[in-house]
Amino acid sequence: MNGHFISFEGPDGAGKTTILQAMVDHYRKRLKDQLTITREPGGNPISEAIRSIILDKENTEMDSRTEALLYAAARRQHLVETILPALQQNHVVFCDRYVDSSIAYQGAGRMIGEKAVYDMNLFATEGELPEKTIYLDVPSELGLKRIMTNRTDDVDRLDLEKLDFHQRVRDSYLKLAKEYPERIVVIDASQDLETVKGDTIKILDQVIK
Amino acid sequence: MNGHFISFEGPDGAGKTTILQAMVDHYRKRLKDQLTITREPGGNPISEAIRSIILDKENTEMDSRTEALLYAAARRQHLVETILPALQQNHVVFCDRYVDSSIAYQGAGRMIGEKAVYDMNLFATEGELPEKTIYLDVPSELGLKRIMTNRTDDVDRLDLEKLDFHQRVRDSYLKLAKEYPERIVVIDASQDLETVKGDTIKILDQVIK
Repeated sequence: MNGHFISFEGPDGAGKTTILQAMVDHYRKRLKDQLTITREPGGNPISEAIRSIILDKENTEMDSRTEALLYAAARRQHLVETILPALQQNHVVFCDRYVDSSIAYQGAGRMIGEKAVYDMNLFATEGELPEKTIYLDVPSELGLKRIMTNRTDDVDRLDLEKLDFHQRVRDSYLKLAKEYPERIVVIDASQDLETVKGDTIKILDQVIK
Repeated sequence: MNGHFISFEGPDGAGKTTILQAMVDHYRKRLKDQLTITREPGGNPISEAIRSIILDKENTEMDSRTEALLYAAARRQHLVETILPALQQNHVVFCDRYVDSSIAYQGAGRMIGEKAVYDMNLFATEGELPEKTIYLDVPSELGLKRIMTNRTDDVDRLDLEKLDFHQRVRDSYLKLAKEYPERIVVIDASQDLETVKGDTIKILDQVIK
């Protein structure tokens, strides 16, 4: 298998979508039809159906562990139907979020426990991890400020809870980066956009040759 | 918590539904409204929605691990919404299938691996296991014969595969019973119905006092 599996991670407001799009623009010419861009649920009917249960606003009683299991089920199907076949065709796969998101958001953010969520995701992925993970790091205050810019909500108790949640998510990402230094590269996403792009390309050029 | 969580398990054709109904008839008078009879998905909207994805015949491409994760997600929600609240009200809970079914059917039957399925279900249940499990044991040939009685299909390759599958399921149940002898009681369900009923009541009378 000569494909390359690359995931993009980051807390809200890190600019992940913008950077991912910039990388697509940058590598599209070189890779042509050998580039697969994907994100869970990834368009397969099973994962889409699972995602719609997670997002159904009627489902207010959903337990955190139920949610984590549903994300893992959707991830499994997306892996089997989209990522692995693309890698087998030697594609470079850019994946918007993968296992690390579950560890940070469900494990740390929702406080299920990072190891528990990681182990459960090992069942889902059979250990299939990205070759390289671009982690766009941003301080929680800045990240939240970026996503709040266009909102008119008052800063209330909910926002303080949010800050707490986001801090747990970020801390968890940074812990993962320390634990898997070969796989996860931390990029300072508080820098200006062009610098962040340049830093990301520098890393990806070592993988995509 | 003074409630009692009792699960009923067995391969197809063991007579589980009949015995469970007989136990409901037998204990209803004694327990009155303190008896909860349930089975996954258990009527909550989230688990029902998950179940409908599993059963959707359009979803022929579903991976075995996706299926196991979906069963675990539905189980989690059923546990949190139905079983635990009933136990907190000191109910006796009769549950038609629980974790052991996943270990036997997904772990052994579909050959994902029993330990992997067990560990993943530990995430879903946080170790919440039945106090007692009635395992109705029946040789695979007899079980299949019982469920085939009203069918007209020829005995073909599919049936032979079925026999193999059912044998793996039964072997797995028997292994579990050896591993958890305090919790799982093996009842010989190849006996006549009245004897099976009597054996089951003898066990349950030790739990439901």
